[in-house]
Amino acid sequence: MQISLSLGVSGPKAREYDLIIIGGGPAGITAGIYAVRRNLETLIIEKTEMGGTVALISEIENYPGFRRISGKELAEKFHQHAKELGVEFTIEEVTQIIKTENEFKIKTWENEYKAKAVILATGSKHRKLGVPGEEEFIGKGVSYCATCDAPFFKDKIVAIVGGGNTAVKDAKYLSEICSKVYLIHRRDQFRADEIDVEELKKRTNVEFVLNSIVEEIKGDSKVKSILVKNKETGETNEIAIDGIFIDIGEIPNSDLAESLGVELDEKGFIKVNERMETNVPGVYAAGDVTGGLAQIVVAAAEGAIAAVSAYEYIRRPYWANKR
Amino acid sequence: MQISLSLGVSGPKAREYDLIIIGGGPAGITAGIYAVRRNLETLIIEKTEMGGTVALISEIENYPGFRRISGKELAEKFHQHAKELGVEFTIEEVTQIIKTENEFKIKTWENEYKAKAVILATGSKHRKLGVPGEEEFIGKGVSYCATCDAPFFKDKIVAIVGGGNTAVKDAKYLSEICSKVYLIHRRDQFRADEIDVEELKKRTNVEFVLNSIVEEIKGDSKVKSILVKNKETGETNEIAIDGIFIDIGEIPNSDLAESLGVELDEKGFIKVNERMETNVPGVYAAGDVTGGLAQIVVAAAEGAIAAVSAYEYIRRPYWANKR
Repeated sequence: MQISLSLGVSGPKAREYDLIIIGGGPAGITAGIYAVRRNLETLIIEKTEMGGTVALISEIENYPGFRRISGKELAEKFHQHAKELGVEFTIEEVTQIIKTENEFKIKTWENEYKAKAVILATGSKHRKLGVPGEEEFIGKGVSYCATCDAPFFKDKIVAIVGGGNTAVKDAKYLSEICSKVYLIHRRDQFRADEIDVEELKKRTNVEFVLNSIVEEIKGDSKVKSILVKNKETGETNEIAIDGIFIDIGEIPNSDLAESLGVELDEKGFIKVNERMETNVPGVYAAGDVTGGLAQIVVAAAEGAIAAVSAYEYIRRPYWANKR
Repeated sequence: MQISLSLGVSGPKAREYDLIIIGGGPAGITAGIYAVRRNLETLIIEKTEMGGTVALISEIENYPGFRRISGKELAEKFHQHAKELGVEFTIEEVTQIIKTENEFKIKTWENEYKAKAVILATGSKHRKLGVPGEEEFIGKGVSYCATCDAPFFKDKIVAIVGGGNTAVKDAKYLSEICSKVYLIHRRDQFRADEIDVEELKKRTNVEFVLNSIVEEIKGDSKVKSILVKNKETGETNEIAIDGIFIDIGEIPNSDLAESLGVELDEKGFIKVNERMETNVPGVYAAGDVTGGLAQIVVAAAEGAIAAVSAYEYIRRPYWANKR
């Protein structure tokens, strides 16, 4: 077992770990839970807030076991769970990961840590429109995830922005739940599969607003309307809505991975196999940074799998891990 | 949307569904949660008890969000969560699934149901020793999952039975947590990877008990000892232990799948891709019946993914799903 070196760091008690997990969202925290239950000395380094982006969600009703819970509360439960089992946490930003012969050096602005294996659970961020009202109304009518939030807009009027597969599929889904759906796309052609676009055109409660961009999201305590500009005519219209889904892409937080030589897919997500191994021995990835269905329970499961794989790597003799 | 036909069935209110999920464990219930949130009329058919085998677990501390919970309680939370969102449940045994041109007929002993898509979440069962005391002491010292239960035996004496990869890996893991580990195997050769066996031989607190079988598990309120017979000498010894891990294999409940033409792997687990699709269009699988890490959170995640995939299948025009 690892001997802890107490070097007077205020946060974590040691600088040398078996496993360091980067990112304190559901993937990272679940990886931590599984790792400490296997007696690995484990540190989670999170940049901003424990729970990751989950902490920002106003209401969750699809994490099994909790009928309805705020993101902040669920994030806190995850964090407490891992902490009580013995996972160490620190809030720092990792600036660099260096692989040496048989370990990893993880540098933050303040400290340098060592680990035998690393799990990257750095998440992703939603691409934003960057218009007035967008930030202000997040969780108050502005959403970036139809799978998460659509049922909260049952029988209401919503807009969805985007032209890719996710936007078109989500528009179909929203049209079955909401009374009216505006699909706003800056071009007149879609990147989505033709079959889904055709299907969507048949839905009587879907209105296509093409060659158009959202210029502003307006409301009081909640979203009330959007200003939409037609790029061809230059005309701007105000459309009354109860919610707006922004589906213009996910940006994986994979810069650290890339600089470590971890292979990414064409969209920048980390490539993993079913054991959550990356192409770099000793480096695992889990959660939204690997793509797939961006859901809390999926991220958590990937974290569990990554931890078990990392454990096996750490406990094998050094020479057996060479490849 | 599906029109419910009320045919006077006492349990579920309709016999025609968008989606039928077979199995009411974490995978099936989570699939249900995701399906009803997408407005699919959804029925879960469970053979014995809601929650599946989870309901039998005495203590769980690795499902993120619940620091420590009994299996019964967690199973009940899952069940309630899905029920409140509108998933229908029935306790019946499915005897046959028939795929017709564009739907599935699901026969139970009592009823016949129809669905546009099916998720198989039928789980697996632990292969048992079949010796006196085994059933009696489940959860009281007898365990079938080291990943789940090892930490409950910290600094205690345990036995592990088996000779495959799982048994040998689990023995390594147990040796780091427990004070003493007896590895009992009926042969003198292991099917496990040589490297892991070699590594295990170096552990000073691991004792190999080869060519031997467990004949009885003894105790009072908890396991106290086992009777172990050496097959070569015929001699029987009593070994004092606090717990015994039985690692002699998982048997997937995949008979229904097989008769439906679903492809299985060499061990009988259902083959799925990353979208949880089987080789039969409209048939998905999730949870322990697909193999992989047999953990609640992993099963739940697979259920979520299967439901989203099934949803897309159900909502596409019929001709587009032909392949």
